[in-house]
Amino acid sequence: MAMDQRHQSATTSAAVTLTKPLHCIVKLGGAAITLKNELETINEENLNIVSSQLRQAMISGPCCGMDWSRRPGSLEVPTVVDDFDDVESDSKKFIVVHGAGSFGHFQASKSGVHKGGLSRPLVKSGFVATRISVTSLNLEIVRALAKEGIPSIGMSPFSCGWSTCERNMAVADSSTVVQAIDAGFIPVLHGDAVLDSSQGCTILSGDVIIRHLAEELRPDYVVFLTDVFGVYDRPPTEPDAVLLREIAVREDGNWSVLKPILQDTTKQVEITVAAHDTTGGMVTKISEAAMIAKLGIDVYIVKAATEHSVRALQGQLKDNIPDDWLGTVIRLAR
Amino acid sequence: MAMDQRHQSATTSAAVTLTKPLHCIVKLGGAAITLKNELETINEENLNIVSSQLRQAMISGPCCGMDWSRRPGSLEVPTVVDDFDDVESDSKKFIVVHGAGSFGHFQASKSGVHKGGLSRPLVKSGFVATRISVTSLNLEIVRALAKEGIPSIGMSPFSCGWSTCERNMAVADSSTVVQAIDAGFIPVLHGDAVLDSSQGCTILSGDVIIRHLAEELRPDYVVFLTDVFGVYDRPPTEPDAVLLREIAVREDGNWSVLKPILQDTTKQVEITVAAHDTTGGMVTKISEAAMIAKLGIDVYIVKAATEHSVRALQGQLKDNIPDDWLGTVIRLAR
Repeated sequence: MAMDQRHQSATTSAAVTLTKPLHCIVKLGGAAITLKNELETINEENLNIVSSQLRQAMISGPCCGMDWSRRPGSLEVPTVVDDFDDVESDSKKFIVVHGAGSFGHFQASKSGVHKGGLSRPLVKSGFVATRISVTSLNLEIVRALAKEGIPSIGMSPFSCGWSTCERNMAVADSSTVVQAIDAGFIPVLHGDAVLDSSQGCTILSGDVIIRHLAEELRPDYVVFLTDVFGVYDRPPTEPDAVLLREIAVREDGNWSVLKPILQDTTKQVEITVAAHDTTGGMVTKISEAAMIAKLGIDVYIVKAATEHSVRALQGQLKDNIPDDWLGTVIRLAR
Repeated sequence: MAMDQRHQSATTSAAVTLTKPLHCIVKLGGAAITLKNELETINEENLNIVSSQLRQAMISGPCCGMDWSRRPGSLEVPTVVDDFDDVESDSKKFIVVHGAGSFGHFQASKSGVHKGGLSRPLVKSGFVATRISVTSLNLEIVRALAKEGIPSIGMSPFSCGWSTCERNMAVADSSTVVQAIDAGFIPVLHGDAVLDSSQGCTILSGDVIIRHLAEELRPDYVVFLTDVFGVYDRPPTEPDAVLLREIAVREDGNWSVLKPILQDTTKQVEITVAAHDTTGGMVTKISEAAMIAKLGIDVYIVKAATEHSVRALQGQLKDNIPDDWLGTVIRLAR
C-alpha cells in the first residue's frame, strides 16, 4: 500500500545538532488526554497516569514539583521545597507533542481555519479562538508534567515561527526546540493554527510536527499514545476488528502487515476517521508513522495509561516485541 | 542625568519590514492588570476596561468576540455568531506587551532565575514554574482582548527563540511578530524566562522587549499603562510627590524634566523600586523609555483604565499635551 507522498521537506536551519542524542518523541493523542465528546474537558485520570509514566521513562533520580502556581480556589502561597537536592538528576532527552482532542477542533471546524482565508472575519476569529483553545490545553499539559517533576516547557509552533505552504510544512526551524532540550528541558509542542503562505492560514497537526522533528532530530524511537490499543484492520468498535501488531515499511514507502498474517493480504486496511477531526485522523497518523519508520526509527502506537504504554515509553520494545505486548509497531522492513 | 548605556544591539533578522507601518506598542504593566499583593490574581476590572480602550484605539468598524471557549462551570457549547459580517474592519497595527505583576515574580525570585545557573535543580524548577505562571497570565490577557474582538495572538519570547547574553538581549528575531502583524493579528508578548548564553538563563523584562521592538519596528508612539499617573520626583505615596509631566531626552542620552519646572533642577529623581520586582521596576522603565524617546518615538506613561489612558492610546497627544491630561511624556528634545 503506497503511503501519501505529497509532503515536501520544510525549510530548516542549516546546522541543528543536539549535544546529546534525542531519546524519544512522544505524541499525546488528543483522544487519550481529553474527553473527546465533551468540549474542552481534559481526561484528568489519563493525563495524570501518562505524566507519571513519562516521568519514569525520562528521569532516574530525585525530582520535585515544578508547578508553583496558586491552586484554584486557594489563597495560600504554594509551598516550594527549599532544600532542593543540588545534584542534577540524570534524565533522557524527550520531546512531547500533543493533539487537540476536544480543544480547538470545535473552533477550527466551525470557522474552517484549515481551509484558509484570513481576510474573512469568521476565519480570522476562528484562528484566534483555536489558538486560545489549544494553548490552554498546552498549558494544562505542561502543568501536569511539571507537577510530576518533568522540566516541561510549552512551545507553540506559531510562536516558533513555523508556517506552511499549500498546507504542507514550509518553515520549521527547530533550533529553538534544540536549545531547550540542550538546556535540560522537555519541550511540549502541539497541533496549532499557523500561517500558510499560499492560503493565509491552516491547521498544522501534531502528527506532521512529529514527522518533521523525527526527520531533523532522529530520536531512537517514537511513541503515539492513543485511546485504542493500536491500529486495526477496521474501525476498532466493530466486533471482528483485528489489531495489527507489526507493520513493515519498505524503502520505496510501501508498507505491509507482518503480524498477524491477514487472510486477505490485498485488502486495504479500513481506517477510522473521526468526523470532526480536521487534521485527518488515522489516515494522517499511519502515513506520518510510515514516513518516520522509513528513516529507520521504530514507531509504537499504543493505548495511553496502560502497562503497554509504559513498556513502549521505556524503550523495552527495541529488539523484541513480546507476545503479551498490545500495540502496533511500525518499522523499516528488515 | 545619564541613562543606562549598557544595552547592546541584539542580533536580529536582516530584513524585517512591515507591510503597513506599526501604529503603537502598548505595555500593560503588571501592577495595572494584576493585584500585585495577591499571588496570581488578575485585576479583572482594570483588564476589562483596558481591553475595551484598546479595542477603541485599534479597530473602527464591527467586530465580535474571538474567544469561543467553554465558560468555566458551563457545559454549554459557546454561541458563535454565524452571520459574520464578511467585511474586514479597518484596524491599526498594534503590539501588546505585558508584565508579570503577581504572576511569575514569586517563582522567579524564590529560585533566582534572573541570576542563572540552570544546572541547579532549584533554578531549573523555578524556570519551569515561572514560565507556567507568566504564560497562564498571557493566556488570560489574550482571552480578555479576544472577547473584545481584538484578534490577539499570544507569543512567548522563549518560544520565539529570543535569548540573552550577560542578561542583555542577544538574539531576538522579530520576523515572526512581523508576520503575525502583517496577517492582521495583534501579537501579545510578555516578560519571560529565557536562556542566557553566558549564565544559562535569566528574566527578560517586558520593558526591554518593548525597547527592542520599538528600535526594530519604529511605531508612531509607545504607551506604558501603569497603576500610578506617571513618573514622580519621589515615591508617589509620599505627600509632596510631584508628577513629572514632560521629560526631554537629548541625542547624547541625557534627559531633563521640562514640565513642571522643578525648584532644584540638579536633584536626582527618586524612583520607586518595588522590592520583589526582579526586573528593576521604575529604573528600568525610565531608562528603556528614554532609549525609545531617543529614536524620536514619543513615550506616554499613564495610569491604566482612566480617561488619560484612552487619550494616550488613541494618539491624541502627538502634537499637543493638553493641560488636563495626567501622565508623563518622554520625548526627544526639540
